[in-house]
Amino acid sequence: MPARTSSPHVTLVGAGPGAPDLISIRGAKALAQADAVLYDALTHPDLLELAPEKAVKVYVGKRAGQPRLAQEEINRLIVEHAFNYGHVVRLKGGDPFVFGRGSEEISHIHAFNIPTEVVPGISSMNSVPGLQGIPLTQRGVNQSFWVITGTTAQGTISEDIFMAARTNATVVVLMGLRKIQQIMRVFARMGKGQVPVAVIQSGSLPEENIALGTVQTIEREVKRLAVGGPAIMVIGEVVRQHPYFSHIAVQEYGGEGAWRER
Amino acid sequence: MPARTSSPHVTLVGAGPGAPDLISIRGAKALAQADAVLYDALTHPDLLELAPEKAVKVYVGKRAGQPRLAQEEINRLIVEHAFNYGHVVRLKGGDPFVFGRGSEEISHIHAFNIPTEVVPGISSMNSVPGLQGIPLTQRGVNQSFWVITGTTAQGTISEDIFMAARTNATVVVLMGLRKIQQIMRVFARMGKGQVPVAVIQSGSLPEENIALGTVQTIEREVKRLAVGGPAIMVIGEVVRQHPYFSHIAVQEYGGEGAWRER
Repeated sequence: MPARTSSPHVTLVGAGPGAPDLISIRGAKALAQADAVLYDALTHPDLLELAPEKAVKVYVGKRAGQPRLAQEEINRLIVEHAFNYGHVVRLKGGDPFVFGRGSEEISHIHAFNIPTEVVPGISSMNSVPGLQGIPLTQRGVNQSFWVITGTTAQGTISEDIFMAARTNATVVVLMGLRKIQQIMRVFARMGKGQVPVAVIQSGSLPEENIALGTVQTIEREVKRLAVGGPAIMVIGEVVRQHPYFSHIAVQEYGGEGAWRER
Repeated sequence: MPARTSSPHVTLVGAGPGAPDLISIRGAKALAQADAVLYDALTHPDLLELAPEKAVKVYVGKRAGQPRLAQEEINRLIVEHAFNYGHVVRLKGGDPFVFGRGSEEISHIHAFNIPTEVVPGISSMNSVPGLQGIPLTQRGVNQSFWVITGTTAQGTISEDIFMAARTNATVVVLMGLRKIQQIMRVFARMGKGQVPVAVIQSGSLPEENIALGTVQTIEREVKRLAVGGPAIMVIGEVVRQHPYFSHIAVQEYGGEGAWRER
């Protein structure tokens, strides 16, 4: 039986979009004080190096060819490790409360009277476009952005995407790559065929891959450039801030050399 | 004339929601290598300690009783300091690209052929509710959240707020406290008087202050608890995850002691 090193408590830590140095200082300190770390597929392996060598590390993400651990199983493992080892860091990609089911985990842990703490993370919704030079808001262009999951529990696309296509909001779709054709059709029907779109895979990591185009062309570009999941989709005029679009403008007006890959 | 320590370049760094240890490791490293730091009102003073003692520190935020520096003046100062000192860290509250005018600054800097880099930050939109136990999304409750500025350039409330009140999205309003009466009226007219609302001031800092209620009661609660700006407003059923609402339920059903201040 493992030695109880401290009384049971759990820290939910947002690991950020991918690159290990995009975790917060507070998150790194929590890891350094962990007795056990339960981590997801979207957290960088280098982050585990921040935990003590003797800390138990348990992978609870998706496994190739196997279904993801059920949320109930993850909840159970968190509580079990807190009682057995003391301080559990539950390390989650992005921010725990943005499509992260963090509140389900906290409710479960509280039912066992185990204290919890939350360390927010840099969410991919803003950081991944930002690292590509795409702001979610821009003065004179838009006053809001709407972040939507592309995959509902029913497997259909969210009703919110239909509503969003009617607005001037920048639309950010997470987990939506498999539905890209349907999603783009919704925007095209609203007369938004020319609106620029970015699809970014593995943002902030060396294997980052981006497709840029318009509602009409993006699906073709995603295929051509073999952009896969997990990816984030940004639909809106703010995407025009990406240097790719100055490149197009320069080509159209016959200039050259004004644009370089950043 | 100051010694040129390195060639001119600028790093836009998101400082996070307020607490200094919520900056990223990458952001802290950029500060440690700064020759000059230009910082906002919403960045924590302790972050300046991360920069070398000899680095120039320039406050470019709002001053009490005086108008904020014009964006053009900030742009000018960034470029001037890059040419005079070398590596400028432009430190901005939250994330530079979420209502942060980061892309305006980058466009200006690029016009002088000065290389730029972006270090994303933890945005207050997700982290401030998250630290209070309020998720922006919850399975079975909502499939999206919509983040809107409360104050448009024209001084009116955004049309997007009228649209948002018709949807099931969690609505997050930044910089909207002065318009709270108007905003709540929009939601009340849509039959959403009972929808829970949180208004959080100075999230993540020791002086954090929160008002909780419903669309009908929140304005009164904000006054009673003297919640002031800068504040973030969250409107939606996800707010019910805050322990305050279990407290109400316990009171209504005659229980006691089941709820404690966390």
